Amino acid sequence: MKKKVGIVGFRGYSGVELIRILSRHPGVEVFLMEHRQDVAPDPAPIGHDGPPVIACSVEAAQVATLDAVFLATHPDVSMDLTPGLLAAGIKVIDLSGAYRLRTVENYKRWYKEEHNQPELLKEAVYGLPEFNRAAANGARLISNPGCYPTAANLAIRPLIDAGVVDLSAGIICDAKSGVSGAGRKPSLKTSFCEVTENFSAYSVLNHRHVPEVLMNSGLEENAFSFTAQLLPLDRGILETIYFRGKNLSNAAALVDIYLARYLAEPFVRIYAAGTFPDLRAVSRTNFCDIGVAYDAASGRGVVVSAIDNLVKGAAGQAVQNMNIVLEFPETESLL
Amino acid sequence: MKKKVGIVGFRGYSGVELIRILSRHPGVEVFLMEHRQDVAPDPAPIGHDGPPVIACSVEAAQVATLDAVFLATHPDVSMDLTPGLLAAGIKVIDLSGAYRLRTVENYKRWYKEEHNQPELLKEAVYGLPEFNRAAANGARLISNPGCYPTAANLAIRPLIDAGVVDLSAGIICDAKSGVSGAGRKPSLKTSFCEVTENFSAYSVLNHRHVPEVLMNSGLEENAFSFTAQLLPLDRGILETIYFRGKNLSNAAALVDIYLARYLAEPFVRIYAAGTFPDLRAVSRTNFCDIGVAYDAASGRGVVVSAIDNLVKGAAGQAVQNMNIVLEFPETESLL
Amino acid sequence: MKKKVGIVGFRGYSGVELIRILSRHPGVEVFLMEHRQDVAPDPAPIGHDGPPVIACSVEAAQVATLDAVFLATHPDVSMDLTPGLLAAGIKVIDLSGAYRLRTVENYKRWYKEEHNQPELLKEAVYGLPEFNRAAANGARLISNPGCYPTAANLAIRPLIDAGVVDLSAGIICDAKSGVSGAGRKPSLKTSFCEVTENFSAYSVLNHRHVPEVLMNSGLEENAFSFTAQLLPLDRGILETIYFRGKNLSNAAALVDIYLARYLAEPFVRIYAAGTFPDLRAVSRTNFCDIGVAYDAASGRGVVVSAIDNLVKGAAGQAVQNMNIVLEFPETESLL
Amino acid sequence: MKKKVGIVGFRGYSGVELIRILSRHPGVEVFLMEHRQDVAPDPAPIGHDGPPVIACSVEAAQVATLDAVFLATHPDVSMDLTPGLLAAGIKVIDLSGAYRLRTVENYKRWYKEEHNQPELLKEAVYGLPEFNRAAANGARLISNPGCYPTAANLAIRPLIDAGVVDLSAGIICDAKSGVSGAGRKPSLKTSFCEVTENFSAYSVLNHRHVPEVLMNSGLEENAFSFTAQLLPLDRGILETIYFRGKNLSNAAALVDIYLARYLAEPFVRIYAAGTFPDLRAVSRTNFCDIGVAYDAASGRGVVVSAIDNLVKGAAGQAVQNMNIVLEFPETESLL
Repeated sequence: MKKKVGIVGFRGYSGVELIRILSRHPGVEVFLMEHRQDVAPDPAPIGHDGPPVIACSVEAAQVATLDAVFLATHPDVSMDLTPGLLAAGIKVIDLSGAYRLRTVENYKRWYKEEHNQPELLKEAVYGLPEFNRAAANGARLISNPGCYPTAANLAIRPLIDAGVVDLSAGIICDAKSGVSGAGRKPSLKTSFCEVTENFSAYSVLNHRHVPEVLMNSGLEENAFSFTAQLLPLDRGILETIYFRGKNLSNAAALVDIYLARYLAEPFVRIYAAGTFPDLRAVSRTNFCDIGVAYDAASGRGVVVSAIDNLVKGAAGQAVQNMNIVLEFPETESLL
Repeated sequence: MKKKVGIVGFRGYSGVELIRILSRHPGVEVFLMEHRQDVAPDPAPIGHDGPPVIACSVEAAQVATLDAVFLATHPDVSMDLTPGLLAAGIKVIDLSGAYRLRTVENYKRWYKEEHNQPELLKEAVYGLPEFNRAAANGARLISNPGCYPTAANLAIRPLIDAGVVDLSAGIICDAKSGVSGAGRKPSLKTSFCEVTENFSAYSVLNHRHVPEVLMNSGLEENAFSFTAQLLPLDRGILETIYFRGKNLSNAAALVDIYLARYLAEPFVRIYAAGTFPDLRAVSRTNFCDIGVAYDAASGRGVVVSAIDNLVKGAAGQAVQNMNIVLEFPETESLL
Repeated sequence: MKKKVGIVGFRGYSGVELIRILSRHPGVEVFLMEHRQDVAPDPAPIGHDGPPVIACSVEAAQVATLDAVFLATHPDVSMDLTPGLLAAGIKVIDLSGAYRLRTVENYKRWYKEEHNQPELLKEAVYGLPEFNRAAANGARLISNPGCYPTAANLAIRPLIDAGVVDLSAGIICDAKSGVSGAGRKPSLKTSFCEVTENFSAYSVLNHRHVPEVLMNSGLEENAFSFTAQLLPLDRGILETIYFRGKNLSNAAALVDIYLARYLAEPFVRIYAAGTFPDLRAVSRTNFCDIGVAYDAASGRGVVVSAIDNLVKGAAGQAVQNMNIVLEFPETESLL
Repeated sequence: MKKKVGIVGFRGYSGVELIRILSRHPGVEVFLMEHRQDVAPDPAPIGHDGPPVIACSVEAAQVATLDAVFLATHPDVSMDLTPGLLAAGIKVIDLSGAYRLRTVENYKRWYKEEHNQPELLKEAVYGLPEFNRAAANGARLISNPGCYPTAANLAIRPLIDAGVVDLSAGIICDAKSGVSGAGRKPSLKTSFCEVTENFSAYSVLNHRHVPEVLMNSGLEENAFSFTAQLLPLDRGILETIYFRGKNLSNAAALVDIYLARYLAEPFVRIYAAGTFPDLRAVSRTNFCDIGVAYDAASGRGVVVSAIDNLVKGAAGQAVQNMNIVLEFPETESLL
């Protein structure tokens, strides 16, 4: 019998992507949970309706039968809905960011709001399966990682773990994202005429995704420079990461570190030294692709990490997490 | 001594373009008139301020000294501001659409609102200089044409006037516009992710620019099919116009009709038969470029008309009209 | 046991799309047939090879075992390869255009080259399943339709068949295509800087896809005006089709004609009157979406037809045809 | 009397931009010098010819009368043409890169070709007026800087000169460019479908523009990491530069260093701390815009430097250099 899963925020970009991915999943039946913040539906062809739309209330009969719910919403909506869903025995996979940090102080600093579910903040498992798979298994609340931190953590952690980074020089992450990362709510900054033929930096040195990288990599804030930048395209994140290497003979040794770490991982792919992924390589896939360059004489190292921000950076990774908590094969509907 | 001109709506796309064009005009001094609907300013480099910002009220001392004002606003704002400006002896060039039609009934039908300045509606001169230059000279209120009708009228009127169109078959205008034509106010329809890699038709057979074409060409509504479509680009309008020809020996004869009509016009350019302008040819210029194909055996005729919607379709034509009413050379700062 | 299928031209845009679609097909095993005109491969992640690459010669052992071959090549390459493949008992699905017209005279007129396989030209079945399904079943050579004609024929034929078009007024098809329709071979016309922020008409009244529409719709050449235009986007075709209606009470009646015709068709979707598909609606799908507007008083009718030129306009329809000739369910891997 | 200037490579993107800028210059008359490598002309409207086309040979009478020639060509063409032009007393402004480095060894290392004009390599003045104005004055051969190095040098040199960079940590320049920087010759890498909705790194740690930055800033190669990346847009370069600061109290102090250095410069603009230019701010202008962020506690510094690669990065700076060598006001036709 199929598992039943609900999506809150199903007209947003991550929500639409969840529907697209889950439509191929043989083990789940999808329900769209209409929430007051949803936008108007697009015109649709006659007779080609999508999944059924149901209420977004844990009291509703249809909601009570769900096995899991995706929250593709704003953090405050997530904090409102999560306690009731968990109390009803429904697994929650939260894409809002509400549960990504570990303390209410840190949350307030970076999200500029009070956190009103401190116990859930402690309980939530950070759903980066490549590092947290065991903890996710059995969890009832998964905090789906941010898009920028997914690409950054998958690239940085193996280097730190292998001890090949001169931490005194810090690590620099120059990140570029497509516009869908900003969500579907209209704003001047994401209007077509402001973005096309343009490129801009924002949240320089103070982006709210920074603490997710520090938390997972063990880097000190003072040793990590992060710049977010807006690409004139729909989807994709590419991060160019700079470090000073040590104990590294050449670029091939760097490639080997990544290959060793990700050999068994279905969603991380490594390129030969001196070749790099572009956004097309990962578009509409759940892959994180990594390529490196390294100059042994000077220790200058460069890592390029690419994902689709709506897939591995949001909906795809959320389904990967759902597959874990609902005990499907982890790659189901994602390859 | 320089003439003084004001711009209301100076942070909108037409307003920014007015500033850009007028910054090269040797005969005018520009003032930006802050209106309550204006959006927040962009960051600007230190010490590189633009023109002075003044109040938007005819009682303000600085406003009283203006020679002309551009209204790059919504129609209701234009209707509010125009009477006072005219009473103060200031010429008004209106880009809002408030005065483009001839009757309040027609206005209500197409703009879905009451017109509260019926006398001004009668008085306003339709500012398509290639056809209305004489009337504009001396006028105190110029209604700057819509972007779509500018490209359409310049292409269609010479054919009607020359008697080479079989009107019983009607004329079809398949129009495509860049996104800046929709203005700078954020909306879902003009969000980057909704527009990029997309193309869509809207207001099919009922666009509010239709009556401007009928009014100027003498076409019956039943004989004119117009489709507006949104291109994934910033600026430019290209219209592909189809008609059934008569009394036309070949495509060269069609070219000759246009050449004869526009020989002395500085802003209309004609292409050799079988070659066509693209949007790049007119981008950031005040030109309307026209190319044709014609099959004499069947009478199938195609005309391609291209403009930059923010220049010949808005700010450029508005400056052309200002040059006329303030008695500058008509091409000043526009070539 | 899986059927074996080969792809010639697997690094072109249609070829890459064939690989993508067939990677989900449970019934086939894919082989890439290296041909001398292929471009260099892109960098790929370590250990993530695609399907095996084999020679492109009917003498090669691996080729001899194939059940079907897709020719995503230029017409002259298709004419070279087809006879040998057919002689070896291999079904051929040709995407090149070599076999779309019915006579060598017509081929020469529109393709400006001699056809050297006149017998195959007669034998080939035009693979538009919605109209030719029965003939395709059992055929050994399928000519996959052109991208523009697919969108045009699906929209136009039901109107002609229903007798609601005043043919004396002709039909006009204003067509817009993404750049991938021009293939992957570099050229100035498809260079990024020439296309972005641009839009242009080409092959006005003389595009080689015109005879495919005439042939299928029964329209006279003199009654059909077709303009091809290049959109600044990767993939998608949208055609705006104009006609003069007769015997039609209103737009809903027009919708009913399409619904009746396509009720049982899995890949044609119809919109409610006055609502229209955009390119996003069909992107990366095998759907053809159709929307209409109609003014009964004047008989002005507008039909918008949208497809993804690489899917329903090329690789998707080719797989649909493969499903027919290899006796898989027609929708396999396409929904 | 007007000075006469010629342009070789006038159909390339820098050449077209030179024509556009010089068309407003009151002091020069432009001649287009047809060279065998030029591409076919675009269709043009009847009667709107551009500047006259002349031969590209120093023996031609019209060439002999020129005062200056712009070489917007490949380096080998520049090396062929320069000696003859100089011998005829014609000033040369070279945009090809042929004379940017100081030694034939360095040229061979980075350009992978022999340099056959070693004397001219020594003589050429590097035309970055903000640092080399005095030397350019009176020079007969100007080497116009590369696009990436222009943005990098204007941002980096003031920091080095002010002694606020901890050089032991190195400087990182993460550079992004629009596609026009690659020139107009068609190639797969610059084809529309390969670039749109894509972003990619290239020439990581080994781009040929690196030595231009080292040469001008005094940085050691081992202390400078440079990554070039391709943006899906036509024109613009934005570089995000990372350094470890010393002797800097806060971001405002960093802004002051730039303001002090560029106070009198017409083409470099500085932003308030924490605000940054985007590409729109400099598009179609000769400005280099600079914004900074700085965290005094950790010394993490970020500088954003933006130019239009075809203007300040090519044609605009070339005209700035022409204004210097032909003794026009340096800003003529550039503001």
